[in-house]
Amino acid sequence: MVVECSTDEIAAAVRDYDGVTRKRAIGEIINSLRIVTPNVPVSFGDDAALIQNGDTGLLLAADGIWSRLLDADPYWAGFCAVLVNVHDIAAMGGIPLAVVDIMSVKDAVVCHEVLRGMYEASAKFCVPVVGGHLHPDAEMNVVDVAILGTVNPADAIYSHTAQVGNRVVAAIDLHGRIHPSCAMNWDSATLRTAEEVRAQINVMHTLGERHLVTGGKDISNPGVIGTLGMLLETSRKGAEVCLDDIPRPDLDELGITFEHWVRMYPGMGFICSVPVESVDTVIGLFTGVGMAAADIGVVTDSQKLIIRHGDDESTVFDLKKQGIMGIPMVD
Amino acid sequence: MVVECSTDEIAAAVRDYDGVTRKRAIGEIINSLRIVTPNVPVSFGDDAALIQNGDTGLLLAADGIWSRLLDADPYWAGFCAVLVNVHDIAAMGGIPLAVVDIMSVKDAVVCHEVLRGMYEASAKFCVPVVGGHLHPDAEMNVVDVAILGTVNPADAIYSHTAQVGNRVVAAIDLHGRIHPSCAMNWDSATLRTAEEVRAQINVMHTLGERHLVTGGKDISNPGVIGTLGMLLETSRKGAEVCLDDIPRPDLDELGITFEHWVRMYPGMGFICSVPVESVDTVIGLFTGVGMAAADIGVVTDSQKLIIRHGDDESTVFDLKKQGIMGIPMVD
Repeated sequence: MVVECSTDEIAAAVRDYDGVTRKRAIGEIINSLRIVTPNVPVSFGDDAALIQNGDTGLLLAADGIWSRLLDADPYWAGFCAVLVNVHDIAAMGGIPLAVVDIMSVKDAVVCHEVLRGMYEASAKFCVPVVGGHLHPDAEMNVVDVAILGTVNPADAIYSHTAQVGNRVVAAIDLHGRIHPSCAMNWDSATLRTAEEVRAQINVMHTLGERHLVTGGKDISNPGVIGTLGMLLETSRKGAEVCLDDIPRPDLDELGITFEHWVRMYPGMGFICSVPVESVDTVIGLFTGVGMAAADIGVVTDSQKLIIRHGDDESTVFDLKKQGIMGIPMVD
Repeated sequence: MVVECSTDEIAAAVRDYDGVTRKRAIGEIINSLRIVTPNVPVSFGDDAALIQNGDTGLLLAADGIWSRLLDADPYWAGFCAVLVNVHDIAAMGGIPLAVVDIMSVKDAVVCHEVLRGMYEASAKFCVPVVGGHLHPDAEMNVVDVAILGTVNPADAIYSHTAQVGNRVVAAIDLHGRIHPSCAMNWDSATLRTAEEVRAQINVMHTLGERHLVTGGKDISNPGVIGTLGMLLETSRKGAEVCLDDIPRPDLDELGITFEHWVRMYPGMGFICSVPVESVDTVIGLFTGVGMAAADIGVVTDSQKLIIRHGDDESTVFDLKKQGIMGIPMVD
């Protein structure tokens, strides 16, 4: 049996993981900044903001790289800076167009490596870096990227629209490795060809166009369960998840525990809420591009994320009591 | 006489100002990142990248706030983070749509003040903050903003298209103050109403639509002469500028020197290359929104930026020998 510890232990490991807890300051920031504009139907809480420009939907997002990763491996940090932004657009069902980078640089060698990683991801995903800003005299190294994409507004995939009764589908590219510089990163993208990663990214666009999902997110630092929690928080829903069904590589061979795996940033992973009748099609599209995909549970109205393993069951998040991001809702 | 020191002294003051010298690392970064994509006709070296999306021109830019400013006044730094990005879009003749912010936060009080400033600028210019990224556990405070805008590609204003024989028009809102927290910042935007600043920003859009200028930039940290130098570098041109013609407030009353003034970030200022026959119209449009505008010189083919005062003359930049940004050109 792969899941060796109790659901309580896994729930606590996810809940207390700093990949999750560091999302908590987001709500306060949103409260401070939100102004209502009619051409921005979706902004905070989703992976990208949707800006309506005539008939076109424009997607704008920004993501930064955790300094922990930058210290461990600046090349990989640069690669990820582009990767996570491409995922933000893909998660919305969009097509990424271009990125800008903003770097604070203390150390020229680090800077060079970041740029090398950024360039390779940019070329691999065919998303050009078109500008940016440089702080040449910083006290620390920081790398941030913002991205522009497009989507047909009618086909966009959101985080706030999961429906009760939907199945939860998790898709992860298991053809990868624990990144040698960062034990919490599962890296598949550097091992795949450009054609393979572009096909994987494009699946979300297809899911949007064919209206096969009601909601979706890319799996980011909070890991598969933490990211599902964020989807549920934004949708004001709950879910019941069967841990045994979560796609995973051979953990024994890798020498990591299940609770380690579910907290990992998977490099190429998505979590979607899917109407029952579309589950097979969605799973088929992901497996068609070499990703492992599975129905791992159901969306409920409880606003609790509950994990199950055999007869064991625990609540990871009670989102009515405490949100992960604490995003204030506007109705 | 307002200009009291020699042109040599002013040339050196501009050339050696760190607002100018810190632009030098840009070229190396561009060399590392550029990939050629047919839908991005303009990127590095301009105030924003132009991405062709069907018939629509999308503008994407990013700008960060100098830590010096953030330390001095986090509210003003937050305000400026939005302001400078709005200027990047305006400088291209575009319409700003939305921004995303990326913050590294060490100090909650600083964060709160940055957000307050960002919110007020966002509301004043009617450009919503639609998302972003937060590093909650940083060693230093950093605030960066990226912006999305649109422009009709046929009406876009570039930095690389100044023509020999054009007049150089500088426009600055002199209705302002030396910012109390930062002696190198001229602040007009916080003193003007929302209607006034929006009308000022919109002049560049009008100039683009009416094809009245051949090139333009917003005047940023390098000040009026330094920014003109960047325009000339990108256009591979030179200019001769008459210092007496540069718009200025009453410097004696303010207690600052002319060489201080020309290095200031003017808060609302643009520099344009203008065909002779359009100069009066361009100046009229700027003065119509309360900005001081003047013909300060001529674009030449020398690739030298020369300043004149009476019989005194000095070369500020010999751009053939050393660029300000060192941006590699692709022909």
